[in-house]
Amino acid sequence: MTTTSPEVPTTQNLALAIDIGGTKAEAALVDSNGTVVSGSRFRRPTGPLASSDDLAEAVRSVLGDAVASRTPGSTLLGVGVGSAGPITVADGLVSPLNLAVWRDYPLRQLVIDAVPDVPVTMRMDGECITLAEHWVGAAVGYDNVMGMIVSTGIGGGLILEGAAVAGPTGNAGHIGHVEVGGFDDPCLCGGIGCVEAIASGPKTVAWANRQGWVGATGEDLAAAYAAGDATAIAAVERSGRAIGQAIASATALADLEIVAIGGGFSRVTPDLFRFIREAIAKRVAFGFVTKVKVVPSSLSDAGPLIGSAALVHRADMLH
Amino acid sequence: MTTTSPEVPTTQNLALAIDIGGTKAEAALVDSNGTVVSGSRFRRPTGPLASSDDLAEAVRSVLGDAVASRTPGSTLLGVGVGSAGPITVADGLVSPLNLAVWRDYPLRQLVIDAVPDVPVTMRMDGECITLAEHWVGAAVGYDNVMGMIVSTGIGGGLILEGAAVAGPTGNAGHIGHVEVGGFDDPCLCGGIGCVEAIASGPKTVAWANRQGWVGATGEDLAAAYAAGDATAIAAVERSGRAIGQAIASATALADLEIVAIGGGFSRVTPDLFRFIREAIAKRVAFGFVTKVKVVPSSLSDAGPLIGSAALVHRADMLH
Repeated sequence: MTTTSPEVPTTQNLALAIDIGGTKAEAALVDSNGTVVSGSRFRRPTGPLASSDDLAEAVRSVLGDAVASRTPGSTLLGVGVGSAGPITVADGLVSPLNLAVWRDYPLRQLVIDAVPDVPVTMRMDGECITLAEHWVGAAVGYDNVMGMIVSTGIGGGLILEGAAVAGPTGNAGHIGHVEVGGFDDPCLCGGIGCVEAIASGPKTVAWANRQGWVGATGEDLAAAYAAGDATAIAAVERSGRAIGQAIASATALADLEIVAIGGGFSRVTPDLFRFIREAIAKRVAFGFVTKVKVVPSSLSDAGPLIGSAALVHRADMLH
Repeated sequence: MTTTSPEVPTTQNLALAIDIGGTKAEAALVDSNGTVVSGSRFRRPTGPLASSDDLAEAVRSVLGDAVASRTPGSTLLGVGVGSAGPITVADGLVSPLNLAVWRDYPLRQLVIDAVPDVPVTMRMDGECITLAEHWVGAAVGYDNVMGMIVSTGIGGGLILEGAAVAGPTGNAGHIGHVEVGGFDDPCLCGGIGCVEAIASGPKTVAWANRQGWVGATGEDLAAAYAAGDATAIAAVERSGRAIGQAIASATALADLEIVAIGGGFSRVTPDLFRFIREAIAKRVAFGFVTKVKVVPSSLSDAGPLIGSAALVHRADMLH
């Protein structure tokens, strides 16, 4: 699908990438090596106070600025749109949990109107980040991958047998809402013991607070962990254990080879990965579960944009 | 992969199907409509007392009998092998949990030696049953399917975006070892709250026994449920709830459209399906989770054989 004119160097074949989340809309041009074109990256805030029109204007603005930064001689292959979920991919609609004014909002059409005459492909942000890990990140060379973000929420995406799995509605990869045995934390989704309800940054902080720890943020918890605070250590261990159990369940179901984890809270301490791996190692009967590698994301903060660009440059991986 | 000579009616293009499990090895010829050829089905016991040579002889025996039943003019396209897992599909090895004498046993080579000169394809039994549901069972017309068996254990398989998902080791679909929130039943695999450890027939009976119910089998429990015994009802409700929670997690991860459930204990009472659906309906925030249909298998007891035959007749669905 990404036809290349022979006289144009591949770095002149560009995708316009846009990523839309709870705090910002961001767009950039990304070349076919997965590199963000210098000077092409633009950001506008979104947030819970923005109206639907504000959000639409933010999207149009960053798209317009990125398009205007194109140099002569480059080819725009298409637009890749990554959005916070849930989404309805067939109809191009989004209902980002953290942007309550958008429910079944026709985001794909907004982008088509803003950038006419090129193909527009939209997927959930978790799928995009997974494509980015597979393309230029920590999961290069693997065909069975889960990308995962551990931050204010927990999300992710799947690549199975070399193909990105969107699912019929576009919502495959919601690892945050896989339940975890031995936990009964209620989740806003209606589940019980969903890993997001246990192990996101805010939920980990809240658990530590309930044990008497005084501190407000993931950064506070990281500092307390580094200083050897027993409650902070217990809180991070508990969250790592829950994440590991969720990954073990996902691997039992999908036979994953590697899980790449990014997001702010994934960097609370490198020990988080040890706790995750220890929980997975408990599945002693199943070598196909304990085999799964768990590694930190190796993407920069442009990972979501590179992932959106993969919807264009790596379109052969989409169903 | 299934080349057809134009002069041969499709019902004369046959797959040799074999299914190997904890209690029996069974083989049959299956035509390209998914129908078992009359008089071609043969069975031999396996079981925990059989030696490795006994098991191999059972496999050779049922294969030989089924091949010998072929009528003149039919074409043998290939052999499809379904085996209890875990397996290592790339090397053709099986380690069925309930056949302890086979660990990394070269089953595919055994079949190749027994039936030379045709292609042999091997997959886990849960994947085969899922292919059968998709081909001629309760999941016809769906592209995102989980087949599931609830019996002495709980297993299954996945079809996502129209393709059977084997996974790199062949073990995708182990739904029995997806954990369930709010439960802490220990699982032999090392997990905690795995749905198999809660909701298999024997585990459901064991839970009812611990509450004081006197009875030994799933059939006893079915009778007690039908008679209105409060403990039997509580036991079945508990297992249905756990199965529903596991399906909800699997759907959060894989965006399933339909789950078809077979196996002896799935027929303990039709109410089991109501309990399963009620648990899934609790995921109120996610329409893409609550949308998943849960239906009884519509396959006969030849389902596993039809699934093994699908490895030949529906080879285009395999990666």
